[in-house]
Amino acid sequence: MSAEWLRWVRRGGPAERPGGSQEPGPRPPPAAPCYRRPKFLRGGGGEESPRGGRGGRAVRGTGPERPLPWGSGYAEVINAEKSEFNEDQATCCQISIRRRELGLEEDKEWLILCSTQFLTGYYWALFDGHGGPAAAIIASNYLHYCIKQKLEEVAGAITETHPPMHMSGRCVCDSDPQFVEEKHIRVEDMVVGALENAFQECDEVIGQEMEATGQTGGCTALAALYLQGKLYVANAGDSRAILVLKDTVVPMSCEFTPETERQRLQHLAFLFPKLLDGEFTRFEFPRRLKGDDVGQKVLYRDYFMEGWGYKLVEKADLKYPLVHGHGKQARLLGTLAVSRGLGDHQLKVIDTNIEVKPFLSCIPKVNIFDFALHDIKENDVLIMATDGLWDILCNKEVAHMTRSFLAENRTDPHRFSELAKCLVYRARGKKIGHQWMLDDSHEASYDDISVFVIPLHNRDEDC
Amino acid sequence: MSAEWLRWVRRGGPAERPGGSQEPGPRPPPAAPCYRRPKFLRGGGGEESPRGGRGGRAVRGTGPERPLPWGSGYAEVINAEKSEFNEDQATCCQISIRRRELGLEEDKEWLILCSTQFLTGYYWALFDGHGGPAAAIIASNYLHYCIKQKLEEVAGAITETHPPMHMSGRCVCDSDPQFVEEKHIRVEDMVVGALENAFQECDEVIGQEMEATGQTGGCTALAALYLQGKLYVANAGDSRAILVLKDTVVPMSCEFTPETERQRLQHLAFLFPKLLDGEFTRFEFPRRLKGDDVGQKVLYRDYFMEGWGYKLVEKADLKYPLVHGHGKQARLLGTLAVSRGLGDHQLKVIDTNIEVKPFLSCIPKVNIFDFALHDIKENDVLIMATDGLWDILCNKEVAHMTRSFLAENRTDPHRFSELAKCLVYRARGKKIGHQWMLDDSHEASYDDISVFVIPLHNRDEDC
Repeated sequence: MSAEWLRWVRRGGPAERPGGSQEPGPRPPPAAPCYRRPKFLRGGGGEESPRGGRGGRAVRGTGPERPLPWGSGYAEVINAEKSEFNEDQATCCQISIRRRELGLEEDKEWLILCSTQFLTGYYWALFDGHGGPAAAIIASNYLHYCIKQKLEEVAGAITETHPPMHMSGRCVCDSDPQFVEEKHIRVEDMVVGALENAFQECDEVIGQEMEATGQTGGCTALAALYLQGKLYVANAGDSRAILVLKDTVVPMSCEFTPETERQRLQHLAFLFPKLLDGEFTRFEFPRRLKGDDVGQKVLYRDYFMEGWGYKLVEKADLKYPLVHGHGKQARLLGTLAVSRGLGDHQLKVIDTNIEVKPFLSCIPKVNIFDFALHDIKENDVLIMATDGLWDILCNKEVAHMTRSFLAENRTDPHRFSELAKCLVYRARGKKIGHQWMLDDSHEASYDDISVFVIPLHNRDEDC
Repeated sequence: MSAEWLRWVRRGGPAERPGGSQEPGPRPPPAAPCYRRPKFLRGGGGEESPRGGRGGRAVRGTGPERPLPWGSGYAEVINAEKSEFNEDQATCCQISIRRRELGLEEDKEWLILCSTQFLTGYYWALFDGHGGPAAAIIASNYLHYCIKQKLEEVAGAITETHPPMHMSGRCVCDSDPQFVEEKHIRVEDMVVGALENAFQECDEVIGQEMEATGQTGGCTALAALYLQGKLYVANAGDSRAILVLKDTVVPMSCEFTPETERQRLQHLAFLFPKLLDGEFTRFEFPRRLKGDDVGQKVLYRDYFMEGWGYKLVEKADLKYPLVHGHGKQARLLGTLAVSRGLGDHQLKVIDTNIEVKPFLSCIPKVNIFDFALHDIKENDVLIMATDGLWDILCNKEVAHMTRSFLAENRTDPHRFSELAKCLVYRARGKKIGHQWMLDDSHEASYDDISVFVIPLHNRDEDC
């Protein structure tokens, strides 16, 4: 699928030809994208079968034949028959950023000759789908295009020391540079803005394409972008990225779930009660209330409360709560386990007309790591993984495994791929009877698990 | 003014007599509260005159004749004729918390005999008024009543090791204790909830009383509550509290201004565009735009952006921005310098019908400091002050002055009062010609300045 097609979908009409003239008529709607595994895993036969053709849970990873940028490693495993497909998706690529001039057709590539007007970014992303694999597939195909496009729109600013007030560089007011300085607007703020806008645009693309092809579902999105000496990690959902450095672990994302975003969700329901259509209560209680609780004062929280209070229970409080359950069981509207992500435009609460989308946010929180401020060591890595890993292993355990493995395999050029596989194996566990078990005889992960291990030491060398 | 009157105002009708019978008819509306300085400063003549009767800026503080709890010190100075009155107010008192039983009249004091059913809290609060002193006066009179009331409502829970699911202690469901534990609901969460609800109730009281007495204005509120070995600092506005400990400074509040709450304010304007009545733009730009900017792409931020982007300027973008200005100049709707606080129910943007109140929040952010986790030293103190101090002195400077002063005056029993005066003097500076100047020849504070210095070492001894 080409960028031209992306434009077609985005604009909701026929694509412009490079010369600017229109195609004779509208194209037929695009076909739904096929289920597939990440490009960089493809090779021999049978891989497009969700379970490797054997109905099993074989761990698959990158091998020496298809090196990823910086020597990154990747591994994945499908869920324990929770769904037909592995609903995780992954992308890894370089992003070349051209400088676009205002008023110039984007297809006029005269600037290609001037190498200083190019920037190269490196991109890794994980998408954890739900309600089918479609949204994660589209997101894995397009988010990097959206990011590229949004970065190109501000390329003039991010190649300057300070972003100019006017993109054109024109100075309408003599003190414009001071205004920009006073607001502490830095180049990295432009990249953050581009990422925020790219997620929003990608969400629109997904909505349009899902509607056009009659598909449903959504996905989380965790994207890492290395640009100009800085690492940007943008997250919308419950995947996680951490930096495992020699002496410390730096969390690069936080999770967005119905529990972590309870106040935002309750506030929206307070502002627009109709969104709950009389079927849900916006109040949080420690458990679902029963008839016997009516007339009692029970623990509760409303949208403005970080603390708890007691509420005299009325009949209306017996409705299902907007946010309910704890930990992995927490659900938004009894339906979704995440509160941010892409897609889900059509999603309704089962047997009702209540839409979930108004409560979802597609905006990522972006964290920045500036390599210039740190002395990066040989074994320092960024670990990105979907919740299948983090449900089983905490940051400390992943950091410990990472440091031991890399120290013991210092000379292996493929050690980052091997580590990714090792992490996936650890969280998947072994099948004993009908159960997937960890070594310590706790239950292992039944979920899809995807892991990137990205070495940071030789980050400027292209592979 | 009595608690009975407070109930009258809150209920918007005649007060119940202790026995529950009604008064013969509604009372006349209460008179507006008189301007006054904090009770603990009152004594000799002339103090109720805003400027001490001399039109000057004398620093006033607590003296040995009226000791405050824990030997706390307080000092204040009026602004440099910015307004007729000192718009700051302060309160300091003990709060006795009775346990209320469900279904018992609150005036039946049979529980008074059982001393274990009482808790004593210590309370210090600062209120920085704007648009007149009325809101700050009412808040300084009532917030502690509201807090007392809300704590009494949960007194049964905060005297237990874990708050019970049902306030009555009744167990509707066998696993209720597990549900509460699973949600990590602790006693301190009940206190936080009580503080959040108390601020909201106090705001309603202020709204009702201001309407009844035809007054206008609002105030910030910073309240510290010591209860059961923990210090709770609740803040709504731009005052600040810090703990100055031997080796560290612990910020106990953060400021809520149009700048720090930009995204919340913009989001509300995005959800309810009518609130801006076509007069304001919700977008943020580094400066107010001009006609020459139309058609240009300029730096901007929308509600969902922490980063910046470029926006093609349209004519509508020339409207005055919802949040505008930087630092102390930042304003909400061109009107207010704070985004949280109490009051302002009637406030409209000048020459328009646009209400400011929908954008304001009266909910505090509560920070907790657990004394059991820290080894408190002799000179460790909590410093609370209105923005008049913090505009001039940063945390580090205040900590440095505090440590030096207390070390040099170890034997003076009134050193905490002396330190409070010293901090106020430092921020007020000296009058040189028509200007108030600091020693380093920078401008001093022209604002009202109020400071509490609260020693933490002997906190369990009543004074």
